[in-house]
Amino acid sequence: MASLDCGPPKKRPKESQLEENEETFDKQDRDYFRSYSDIAVHEEMLSDTIRTNAYRHAILKNYENVHGKIVADIGAGTGILSIFCVQAGAKKVYAIEASDMVEQTRRIVDENRMSDRIDVVQNKVEDVVFPEELDVIVSEWMGYNLFYESMLQSLIHTREKWLKKGGLMMPSAASLYLAPFTDEDYPDRLELWSDMYSLYKVSMEAMKPYAQKCIASRVIIRSISPESVQAHAHKVCCLDMKEVQRADIEKVQNKFEFRCFGHSEIHGFTTWFTVDFPGGTSLTTSPYSEGTHWAQTLLYIDQPLDVEQDTLIRGTISISANPKMTRYLDISLSYRVGEGPVYHKYYLMNDWIT
Amino acid sequence: MASLDCGPPKKRPKESQLEENEETFDKQDRDYFRSYSDIAVHEEMLSDTIRTNAYRHAILKNYENVHGKIVADIGAGTGILSIFCVQAGAKKVYAIEASDMVEQTRRIVDENRMSDRIDVVQNKVEDVVFPEELDVIVSEWMGYNLFYESMLQSLIHTREKWLKKGGLMMPSAASLYLAPFTDEDYPDRLELWSDMYSLYKVSMEAMKPYAQKCIASRVIIRSISPESVQAHAHKVCCLDMKEVQRADIEKVQNKFEFRCFGHSEIHGFTTWFTVDFPGGTSLTTSPYSEGTHWAQTLLYIDQPLDVEQDTLIRGTISISANPKMTRYLDISLSYRVGEGPVYHKYYLMNDWIT
Repeated sequence: MASLDCGPPKKRPKESQLEENEETFDKQDRDYFRSYSDIAVHEEMLSDTIRTNAYRHAILKNYENVHGKIVADIGAGTGILSIFCVQAGAKKVYAIEASDMVEQTRRIVDENRMSDRIDVVQNKVEDVVFPEELDVIVSEWMGYNLFYESMLQSLIHTREKWLKKGGLMMPSAASLYLAPFTDEDYPDRLELWSDMYSLYKVSMEAMKPYAQKCIASRVIIRSISPESVQAHAHKVCCLDMKEVQRADIEKVQNKFEFRCFGHSEIHGFTTWFTVDFPGGTSLTTSPYSEGTHWAQTLLYIDQPLDVEQDTLIRGTISISANPKMTRYLDISLSYRVGEGPVYHKYYLMNDWIT
Repeated sequence: MASLDCGPPKKRPKESQLEENEETFDKQDRDYFRSYSDIAVHEEMLSDTIRTNAYRHAILKNYENVHGKIVADIGAGTGILSIFCVQAGAKKVYAIEASDMVEQTRRIVDENRMSDRIDVVQNKVEDVVFPEELDVIVSEWMGYNLFYESMLQSLIHTREKWLKKGGLMMPSAASLYLAPFTDEDYPDRLELWSDMYSLYKVSMEAMKPYAQKCIASRVIIRSISPESVQAHAHKVCCLDMKEVQRADIEKVQNKFEFRCFGHSEIHGFTTWFTVDFPGGTSLTTSPYSEGTHWAQTLLYIDQPLDVEQDTLIRGTISISANPKMTRYLDISLSYRVGEGPVYHKYYLMNDWIT
């Protein structure tokens, strides 16, 4: 059978490889927006009560800031955030949705008798001409590893062009965290190749190094337990949504330093994010909190690291949009244990992630 | 977040839509073979003991037919079937593998000290020039819905060109089955949209018809329970691997007739397959048997059908390779309940299936 959810091991793509990929930016955009017309995405997002209630509580709590105000909801989807804003007293909400989902958005707005307060607009937000300045911009723009999908650029563009001086961004801040982790299943996954002899009388030890290499070449989205986090998380970045400039996120680069909690085997580094709303509401995708559909992002390394209490791991992570496929992410990681050798890893975060 | 495993609702692709898709046959082939260089595929296939043991037992049981014989293993992967053949006494096995997995295949063959008996060849089988005629062709060529991946064409090509008169095909026969099914989760999946009010005080009844339309537009790979099968399965086709011609599988079309077991709500039609080996070993992906990684293929219909005991459902199914993306399948379904209206459905079975 063919791999339906697994891609080839990822290496830094050579120019030629990227030219092989005939997908153009426009086609990527088309596919991207089209994917949001599928019901399963919306089932997943709305079933994620941690996510949706964080927005609901934040918007209703900000009654004073929303009541009688002009709001834009960027990437409205079902329009649920727009509806929360009207429930909080918004005078007018522009629900911007580029995908064909927009027909459903309109039906839902009508069903909730809010068509006089919510204007549903099908367009890329960069191309929208708002009839007035905005008091509030609300958006659920966060992708896996915070930056996947690169929707933030569109948001900043809209803020700069349309948000009133002193206007409100919801969320108002976003932070990305990094920590070393242990994958409890990792040993079993390699042991599978030793099991081949007892299962089928065929020896496949030779597959182990290749299996390790493949595992280490992939970005995986999965929930991990709090126990598998092996050091205090490092904050890679903290974006003030009112201040962040497009240039700031073209390449997010940051040094990190971890002191390990104790004896363990590190299989890679995991990221998660938190967004904050005015008034103190937060939404976190941390492994220490209740799970969301974002889970955590796992970056596996080539060889597990054996560490003890207070073992020092230092390094640098850098995240940027892939120049050719701008919704994909290039992630570069370099790290060393104590004064040991420096290791370098590159990951292409694309639709193969699972 | 973006849909990573969900595609847009599928309609019959217009020429223009397919032209939009700049993926060429060569690129599709490249991606297809490349996907087999990923470890996860092989973990899944080898962890599927029903699959692997069926081949192992069939090959060892066919000792007389394999001992001292010339064998080709088409799409060798890890080379496990080639190794089974040597264990059954094969004089020479040509392990044909187009993907870069071939480096691992060689290592595994060496590790099992069979490099004198197994020639690992990296090539598309159509381009392989065998130094001698073949006594046996063994291959695990079956895709989801039997025909997905369209590897069978390559197999027939090799049989016609290289298999000795009276040679052996393993498997020797393949059958595809169709039956109406009930999805126990279907009501909950629609009810989710009614739950939105109690969850978030937002009414989303309007999403139900759209949700139904989306669900009905997708081909889903999932294991269903024996209880969810609502009539005796209909055999869509039975291929004799020695006789089947390429023309026979260009379009597999067949009429079906079901008498429902009893009162139930039908959500679609499910397919599964069985392959038989000389000597009586079989491998089935039926919901009545232990699960395999192929699970079952689910074709959802637009509106559930309420049926009673002996309700008659008649129709036609036709399966063919998509003319532009030849590893994808076009599936057309027409059906009617008793003398009721005739419904028509089209599915594009592509990499979006989940």
